[in-house]
Amino acid sequence: MYEVEVKLPADHERVRRRLDELGAAHEATVEQRDTYYDAPHRSFSETDEALRIRRVRRDGETDARVTYKGPLVDDASKTREEVETGVEDVDAMARVLDRLGFDPVATVEKRREVYALDGYTVVLDAVEGLGEFVEVERESAEIDAAREGAFDLCRDLDLDPDDQIRASYLELLLE
Amino acid sequence: MYEVEVKLPADHERVRRRLDELGAAHEATVEQRDTYYDAPHRSFSETDEALRIRRVRRDGETDARVTYKGPLVDDASKTREEVETGVEDVDAMARVLDRLGFDPVATVEKRREVYALDGYTVVLDAVEGLGEFVEVERESAEIDAAREGAFDLCRDLDLDPDDQIRASYLELLLE
Repeated sequence: MYEVEVKLPADHERVRRRLDELGAAHEATVEQRDTYYDAPHRSFSETDEALRIRRVRRDGETDARVTYKGPLVDDASKTREEVETGVEDVDAMARVLDRLGFDPVATVEKRREVYALDGYTVVLDAVEGLGEFVEVERESAEIDAAREGAFDLCRDLDLDPDDQIRASYLELLLE
Repeated sequence: MYEVEVKLPADHERVRRRLDELGAAHEATVEQRDTYYDAPHRSFSETDEALRIRRVRRDGETDARVTYKGPLVDDASKTREEVETGVEDVDAMARVLDRLGFDPVATVEKRREVYALDGYTVVLDAVEGLGEFVEVERESAEIDAAREGAFDLCRDLDLDPDDQIRASYLELLLE
């Protein structure tokens, strides 16, 4: 299975109106705060790795997880190892990383609204310091078909697939 | 508050009989497996730090936590910083540490029976590769009084406080 994802800048109010007209189901709204770390003994921007603590607030509840992302295994398929676990005390986890010599290098904060439509997940991200984005995504073994479907869905939402951006929010923030 | 602790080798069957005669309450029996890591960029045995993943099995349930222990702040009081959080997926946590370059250097496995007696916690540890130990401990602001009380309790259990050992299980295993 592959994660097929199309991301583009978009005005949320207009997209929400279209989602409503098309009968999309609002599934969740969460606030995410991601802190990215660099290692004391190598540079993750050079090794193409990432270490992240994500704090998620949802319906007044908070949970958190720590995630390691390995370098791209294969550039064409954008496959990388991702290892993740929930943690009970996120401040303690951050302190452990600090004591081990890992430095926070960037924070990505966003408000994320999640909708379901036609087998796709449509995500409206309001990213602090970057603005409003929409992601259309699904898991599929059929990459090309899934991507074409995502492009069609973008058009249904009055969005132009050519506006697609491939950089991560972290990369956009560090630019 | 200080953690006052007296640890000594002891035959568990005899100690259990004395605990029973003295009316001690059995509180829990847990199995703990501790994996200690060394860092890629410094030697924890030289810096007097520790990074540990502890897996605990109790009544068929498993939980786990990751702990960082800093160097001794002050040799007399044996005070060191300890930062700890529970983790949901302990194998993922171990994999994150592996990917970041941390190496497991030692594993301490023990079966721990916990009793309460006269305001003290009496712990019977059966440590793989080391044998049977008893720890008598309590938190107290009055270190000397608490230590004397612990010695008295050892004698009540037919144990000789002079048999006390100060090394950690990890240190004993690495010796």
